[in-house]
Amino acid sequence: MSIESTIVQMAEAAKASSFEIAKFSSAKKNQALYNIAEFLEQEASFIKNENNKDLILAKKKNLPGAMIDRLTISDSTIKSMTDGLREVAGLEDPVGAISGTKIRPNGLEVSRMRIPLGVIGIIYESRPNVTVDAAGLCLKAGNAVVLRGGSEALNSNRALTDLIGKALLKAGLPETVIQLVPVRDRAAINILLNQHELIDLIIPRGGEGLIRFVAENSKIPVLKHYKGVCHVYVDEGADLETAKNICFNSKVQRPGVCNAMETMLVHKSVAEEFLPAMGKLFSDAGVEIRGCLSTCRILANAKEAQEEDWPAEYLDLVLAVKIVDDMPCAMDHIKKYGSSHTETIVTSDYKKARRFVREVDSSVVLVNASTRFNDGFQLGLGAEIGISTSKLHAFGPMGLEELTTTKFVVLGDGQIREH
Amino acid sequence: MSIESTIVQMAEAAKASSFEIAKFSSAKKNQALYNIAEFLEQEASFIKNENNKDLILAKKKNLPGAMIDRLTISDSTIKSMTDGLREVAGLEDPVGAISGTKIRPNGLEVSRMRIPLGVIGIIYESRPNVTVDAAGLCLKAGNAVVLRGGSEALNSNRALTDLIGKALLKAGLPETVIQLVPVRDRAAINILLNQHELIDLIIPRGGEGLIRFVAENSKIPVLKHYKGVCHVYVDEGADLETAKNICFNSKVQRPGVCNAMETMLVHKSVAEEFLPAMGKLFSDAGVEIRGCLSTCRILANAKEAQEEDWPAEYLDLVLAVKIVDDMPCAMDHIKKYGSSHTETIVTSDYKKARRFVREVDSSVVLVNASTRFNDGFQLGLGAEIGISTSKLHAFGPMGLEELTTTKFVVLGDGQIREH
Repeated sequence: MSIESTIVQMAEAAKASSFEIAKFSSAKKNQALYNIAEFLEQEASFIKNENNKDLILAKKKNLPGAMIDRLTISDSTIKSMTDGLREVAGLEDPVGAISGTKIRPNGLEVSRMRIPLGVIGIIYESRPNVTVDAAGLCLKAGNAVVLRGGSEALNSNRALTDLIGKALLKAGLPETVIQLVPVRDRAAINILLNQHELIDLIIPRGGEGLIRFVAENSKIPVLKHYKGVCHVYVDEGADLETAKNICFNSKVQRPGVCNAMETMLVHKSVAEEFLPAMGKLFSDAGVEIRGCLSTCRILANAKEAQEEDWPAEYLDLVLAVKIVDDMPCAMDHIKKYGSSHTETIVTSDYKKARRFVREVDSSVVLVNASTRFNDGFQLGLGAEIGISTSKLHAFGPMGLEELTTTKFVVLGDGQIREH
Repeated sequence: MSIESTIVQMAEAAKASSFEIAKFSSAKKNQALYNIAEFLEQEASFIKNENNKDLILAKKKNLPGAMIDRLTISDSTIKSMTDGLREVAGLEDPVGAISGTKIRPNGLEVSRMRIPLGVIGIIYESRPNVTVDAAGLCLKAGNAVVLRGGSEALNSNRALTDLIGKALLKAGLPETVIQLVPVRDRAAINILLNQHELIDLIIPRGGEGLIRFVAENSKIPVLKHYKGVCHVYVDEGADLETAKNICFNSKVQRPGVCNAMETMLVHKSVAEEFLPAMGKLFSDAGVEIRGCLSTCRILANAKEAQEEDWPAEYLDLVLAVKIVDDMPCAMDHIKKYGSSHTETIVTSDYKKARRFVREVDSSVVLVNASTRFNDGFQLGLGAEIGISTSKLHAFGPMGLEELTTTKFVVLGDGQIREH
């Protein structure tokens, strides 16, 4: 069978099973999630064996160490997958919820009912845990899912989805609710992205290259962020202890993720006091500073920032630093170089806090808190399937509710329209 | 200046002014809406003169009468535009509303703040009233808008947007908040649809051909419905008086619109009693029936339906009729031939009403009410910019809220992440 017919057949099966899963009760979906967790635990050595095949191939190909790290399934990876599944089972089911009920003057009762989106395509890179995490969330929200993981993780992903399929069947759900594209060829992605009659949403997870490729080639709506160029602005009159804690945490606690700070903006009136102490903390933590000219005058060990540093997502212990005249200059910088992802102001000024929150056009805007809080769990969504920096459908971290939509339900007793 | 640079310049100006309009108070936006209404009233003869230029050209080109009808701006068209603007001014402003506030265990206060989408492109056909209606709704929701009307309405649309621009300036808003593409060439549409860095959403309004063209060529998310193939299912045991009223209203009250019934499905146990009386009402109203074989046996004047009748959107006094064995058969028919737009069940059975509402996958699902209620005003949204039959962002009629999104606002007092 050609790659194309394989994928079209999968997408058709997914569409058909999406109508089934949409009807299943929360209890049944939760049972499936618990079953998957049990199967993964029981078959841990099978999973690790299959994963080992991928690891051997990866080492043969001399893939970078970081990639091999991400590819590795250890006992603790399995535990975090099964913990995650059980947590998702414990979350409230968004499907079927009725909201906004109004009685119209003619007696019609109009409500919105939350419903699944249908079929979701997940395109991701080497981490095989995405297979389980994404499948669990899509299932709980009543969607069918087509997974396309990295080609270097195919054995691992196949092992995981085989077990998932068995767990679904045991719970009385069709195994086509969760399917893996069993093809290494990258052409499979383009074919998948063309199935706009069968697939309702694509969520890419991975590096900027993969995400741009998906966005540019998809005929299906894509929820995504390209990168997180996150800013902290330290305002005039800010509590500088608070500012130090927040800036340090935003940059250093986990520098390789999208919600880490990449540029620190500092009001000129606090720079002389704030930067030396902050710079010391950063250099002790191994953070390289690339500063504007004024920053370099204060911090002897700072390199001079180039134009390309301002829009850069380092994902590393590197930080751009700029001294600004006032908050509007900081906001202009964010508008020009930011990625609509996450921005924090550290301030003691009520009016400035309100203005920053209203005017900064990012998916998460914080006052006096670390950028690292842009995360579905931290913001109380209970789960996270990804972060969107485009405004359609969802803006910011996406949980179960963002994997659903609403339809209108109208209950009448014979109403007709007069005009 | 080339068409491309004209349009890129417009889109850039729209993006810049979208940040301005996002900050304006409701009072200022409402003032702009009242100003527009006043200017249109004061300059009614200028508008009609400019419209007349379009009408003369249209008649020269022998455009069909229905198209010339839609193109004509009469005093009553102007009144309905200005009434509409004043109604929109009276609606609640969605922008800035805070919802879902939660205090996290670490004390962070997490909320969602409603914000405008940014820049909206409206691509439409001959009705010049869309220029004013769409501009008013986008403005109220805090968005900038780029309008591309039908080439045959260019003089009319230019007159309207010139007046709108003056009204905006008088209210202290940049006139680039609402702009018209001043180009007849259809290439302008493709260029517009490529501005995905500057325009956030495209809403096409018009025939299926235009909408398909836009959907296939857009790099920007599109909210749309292709067509409305709406069904009424008359269930076993339904109150047949109610069924007659609903079916008649759904088909005849305004057959040329997307929420009119196109196919009537009748349970076999009521067909013998229901169809003759219903058929008489329809034939008295000039409705042509295209029925399945069983229908044709009951209704002598029915034509035999062909396969192409089931997915047809007639937009006319023509109706497909099918007798079905039971409700699941009706739902299967809807799944196969429907357009996810509007479906009604006429029933007296509690369980069937519940099941139909849950399982029918359409943007508006009704029990014992006319399909004609799929409409933003009728369902209480206060306004309507269009109807979406795709599930991302909005499903069903779209009002002011659907022209906005939410961002997360997080208020802290120094919180950092530990892990």
